[in-house]
Amino acid sequence: MTQDLISELQTQCLSLFKKGKVAAYIPALQSANPKALGICISDMDGNTFFSGEYNHQFTIQSIAKVVSFICCLLDSPYEKITEKISFEPTTTPFNSIADLETQNTNKPLNPMINAGAIATIDFVSGNTAEEKFKRILSFMRLLSGNEKLLCNEEAFHSEQQTGDRNRSLAYYMKSTGIIESEVDILLEVYFRICSIDVTCVDLANIALVLANNGMSINGERYFPENIANITRTVIAMCGMYNESGQYAIDIGVPSKSGVGGGILAVVPNRMGIGIYGPSLNEYGNSVCGIALMKELNRHLSLSIF
Amino acid sequence: MTQDLISELQTQCLSLFKKGKVAAYIPALQSANPKALGICISDMDGNTFFSGEYNHQFTIQSIAKVVSFICCLLDSPYEKITEKISFEPTTTPFNSIADLETQNTNKPLNPMINAGAIATIDFVSGNTAEEKFKRILSFMRLLSGNEKLLCNEEAFHSEQQTGDRNRSLAYYMKSTGIIESEVDILLEVYFRICSIDVTCVDLANIALVLANNGMSINGERYFPENIANITRTVIAMCGMYNESGQYAIDIGVPSKSGVGGGILAVVPNRMGIGIYGPSLNEYGNSVCGIALMKELNRHLSLSIF
Amino acid sequence: MTQDLISELQTQCLSLFKKGKVAAYIPALQSANPKALGICISDMDGNTFFSGEYNHQFTIQSIAKVVSFICCLLDSPYEKITEKISFEPTTTPFNSIADLETQNTNKPLNPMINAGAIATIDFVSGNTAEEKFKRILSFMRLLSGNEKLLCNEEAFHSEQQTGDRNRSLAYYMKSTGIIESEVDILLEVYFRICSIDVTCVDLANIALVLANNGMSINGERYFPENIANITRTVIAMCGMYNESGQYAIDIGVPSKSGVGGGILAVVPNRMGIGIYGPSLNEYGNSVCGIALMKELNRHLSLSIF
Amino acid sequence: MTQDLISELQTQCLSLFKKGKVAAYIPALQSANPKALGICISDMDGNTFFSGEYNHQFTIQSIAKVVSFICCLLDSPYEKITEKISFEPTTTPFNSIADLETQNTNKPLNPMINAGAIATIDFVSGNTAEEKFKRILSFMRLLSGNEKLLCNEEAFHSEQQTGDRNRSLAYYMKSTGIIESEVDILLEVYFRICSIDVTCVDLANIALVLANNGMSINGERYFPENIANITRTVIAMCGMYNESGQYAIDIGVPSKSGVGGGILAVVPNRMGIGIYGPSLNEYGNSVCGIALMKELNRHLSLSIF
Repeated sequence: MTQDLISELQTQCLSLFKKGKVAAYIPALQSANPKALGICISDMDGNTFFSGEYNHQFTIQSIAKVVSFICCLLDSPYEKITEKISFEPTTTPFNSIADLETQNTNKPLNPMINAGAIATIDFVSGNTAEEKFKRILSFMRLLSGNEKLLCNEEAFHSEQQTGDRNRSLAYYMKSTGIIESEVDILLEVYFRICSIDVTCVDLANIALVLANNGMSINGERYFPENIANITRTVIAMCGMYNESGQYAIDIGVPSKSGVGGGILAVVPNRMGIGIYGPSLNEYGNSVCGIALMKELNRHLSLSIF
Repeated sequence: MTQDLISELQTQCLSLFKKGKVAAYIPALQSANPKALGICISDMDGNTFFSGEYNHQFTIQSIAKVVSFICCLLDSPYEKITEKISFEPTTTPFNSIADLETQNTNKPLNPMINAGAIATIDFVSGNTAEEKFKRILSFMRLLSGNEKLLCNEEAFHSEQQTGDRNRSLAYYMKSTGIIESEVDILLEVYFRICSIDVTCVDLANIALVLANNGMSINGERYFPENIANITRTVIAMCGMYNESGQYAIDIGVPSKSGVGGGILAVVPNRMGIGIYGPSLNEYGNSVCGIALMKELNRHLSLSIF
Repeated sequence: MTQDLISELQTQCLSLFKKGKVAAYIPALQSANPKALGICISDMDGNTFFSGEYNHQFTIQSIAKVVSFICCLLDSPYEKITEKISFEPTTTPFNSIADLETQNTNKPLNPMINAGAIATIDFVSGNTAEEKFKRILSFMRLLSGNEKLLCNEEAFHSEQQTGDRNRSLAYYMKSTGIIESEVDILLEVYFRICSIDVTCVDLANIALVLANNGMSINGERYFPENIANITRTVIAMCGMYNESGQYAIDIGVPSKSGVGGGILAVVPNRMGIGIYGPSLNEYGNSVCGIALMKELNRHLSLSIF
Repeated sequence: MTQDLISELQTQCLSLFKKGKVAAYIPALQSANPKALGICISDMDGNTFFSGEYNHQFTIQSIAKVVSFICCLLDSPYEKITEKISFEPTTTPFNSIADLETQNTNKPLNPMINAGAIATIDFVSGNTAEEKFKRILSFMRLLSGNEKLLCNEEAFHSEQQTGDRNRSLAYYMKSTGIIESEVDILLEVYFRICSIDVTCVDLANIALVLANNGMSINGERYFPENIANITRTVIAMCGMYNESGQYAIDIGVPSKSGVGGGILAVVPNRMGIGIYGPSLNEYGNSVCGIALMKELNRHLSLSIF
């Protein structure tokens, strides 16, 4: 891998932005530049490669589910978690509610759909929204090495205002005993962590810890190896919304996307990748970002399968 | 029809209570006497027949949907209503949410399932919960001729506390634009009208107005004839939860049941019937009440079909 | 009712054909004249009124389900039938298979959807396709008073060729034990009875027997009164595909439609109506036919509700 | 890895058979010994390890889907295949039909559920059932190195007789244009390949070719590397029925199970594993086989994630 290759592939994939659209449900997303494409790669030897808008700030959105899931695994017993959340991939959309009713159990199918992610927050330490949010934010700062990470208040307020579908999911889970905390607490945390501003560099750094089995490349342990393994597995199976299966075939790198245009990609024992490309395909994944991952896999043989 | 027949049939059906169970999700329902069975019949000639616990007070529960639907039809243009609520029977349970997601439109399928009933309240006059509730309560008092009808505050508070499934339905409809009022307003009204205490006599009197095409038997018009027709049709198609089809075959009288054990039954141009029997079958309908309606139909040929 | 009124209403509704389309899945249907509209009304006094293409032959299609259901009720014990077929209306399309899998029981929801109709044929007398078909055809001839009714062989062969969806339904029911006969036998009968050529006069005569509680107007009993009642109830609840609820509100006459453009409508104790209008709305019901039924209801107050 | 370890783990996992049941829908499966447990491991260096009933013959069942999928990829253009079959994991059971109706496309969700597997056979070379079967059988003989592999005729006839659910799936796909061949042809092939008798050794050898990227360990290429990658990915995502997600977390080895009790497991670039343990858990996977895979992963770190 060379810096030249990364720059070349970034330039090459840029033009595909026309095949997608930026998310439009809140102003903070709607104002994104559809032509933007940034990438940062951090490898295990301490090298960093970047190109394009790698330093542009955008809201992390669903990628926050990865961090909240890790906190959940750290803060609560695994047996308790699996009583309330399944780890099975699903073909219904990320905000689907029908599965909660029609599946045999009322468990959300996995922690990467909205219902499951809201349920993970119930398992994160803290009794108040503030405590739970601080727990996740602090951990995200630790993993990214960026102490300046903050919730984008404007995005948060927009999410609060348009969040009725998530309220519906949460009240459903409250009615079936999947969640125990107050709905308002869980949703405030959920909207807040989705509204944290990040850059490709932050995502690459978080991904690198997962690639390095829970440790910083300096050897500092942030979480146990088995949690890194579980998290990589879950995002490999369910991280790219309803495109997870095809993405696994085409790219094969455990990844999580967000409607802000971000992709966090973990190449075990090799590198962490952060991408920003706000033009989204029909599944809600970054058009240019997926193209870039395909090229990277083609040149660097990244697939774990 | 004679008083003797009614008493005889009431006694005869009493023993079937063992085949069902009283609703248990709130204390007000749980404490009901499963052996209770009351009936009141008011006919167009001004005669009234009754037997058993016809004077026992119980919460009206889902039968309130009938009155809120009539208010909705009176207070808003029919065209606006049909943009937001369908009038099709359904096989999914009364509190189902999956249909809101999986049907082509996001419209609740009919005004007799919870989602549809919550939506009707959006169309009832009034900007606050208090105004909307007063509108429906006043109208229910008018139809029943009972100025003393009141919300049972204990039942209301229990409903509020266990109402997360209905909150989920309401937030879902809020997210898809089916309802416009605040969720909290609609749900307060919904829980309040379901918690109104009534007797068989009240239900028989309300049913009699529907039987008499919107008029009191003294000739006072409470609502237009076509609204009586629409309401009778909707309860004939959807009034007995998932048992509506079999009930239509076995009995054939437009009826609405509630989990409090009540049945309101309308025999067009003949009579109104109110029944109380809190032991419920698997569909949430009164076991003894249905048996009694079958016997009445057998003796009096009540089916409209 | 006068012949003049019928002619006038028929002419008035004619122009609405533009709002629909003729069915196109087999040549016999595709070649229909979308502008055609015929009606025949037979009343209990022996009067007949007609207008337009009342004498045009068309395939009976789903209206045959009414006759096969009556034969099923005549030939098998009611308890056996209700073990295998429910009588509940549904919001899923007539050829839906998902309900067979997702409902608690595997029973088809009612005898007017394809799955349910195929199951009724299992209960009709006869061990071979020929015997079962003859049973239903003979009975249809009896009810219509038309000994010349015949299966349209060309339509039958088209149905056979395009019938894979119905094969799927039948094999599903075979796999769950809902049907016992060979799939090929049931489907041959099903396709054959749907391909019987009828006119508005035939439909009106069949409907008149149902209106007259199972008797000819000369007092000859063709089937028991309770079977007439069950059949009227089932078509009132489920006869107009996914438009049954709205049709009940707008018209309120127990009716069954077919994609050939036919409507059979039963006004209890008053008249039988047969309509032909092959231009269909989105639900598969005759556009002009429904308009004509609305006008008839407006002028003659036909609704049973 | 030593022979001793394998023997020890096999003995250790044996007792868990009580937690499951043998499949009972056909005699050939029903007669299996629930206490049986066999394993064979073939590694890239040419070593073979085995223990227990590794040499017992059993029907391959759903594991045949792996071979038919590879043939499909070899015999038809990838673009044609992806027009008709998705590669997304699903939470509905392997024989579910509802997804074919309720998903936006009518495509079977992946080639490892029954519907998808039947569709792969449409893409395998050959115009007759005999030709298609021979194609797959020959290829399975090649991959396993066992020229004596044969269809178990008794099992095949049982499958034919109980195969109505699969007929339903196939006719559904025929009606929506997903498959083009005659249903009878595809199903004969499907039932035949599922009825091929294999041993753990055969499965281990097939798995080893997948582990070695499409080549024998002697360097003979049987299929291209990218087909090996696609196949490993698909079985990693969808190979263990509705337990695929949890299996990925607990074990993380691309695997395919069958209701005959077999598991084929592929450890890329390391080894192929074949297991036989006919006592099945609620998902249809071998109870002892999964336990054994967990132990192997614990001792040998096999997870790809």
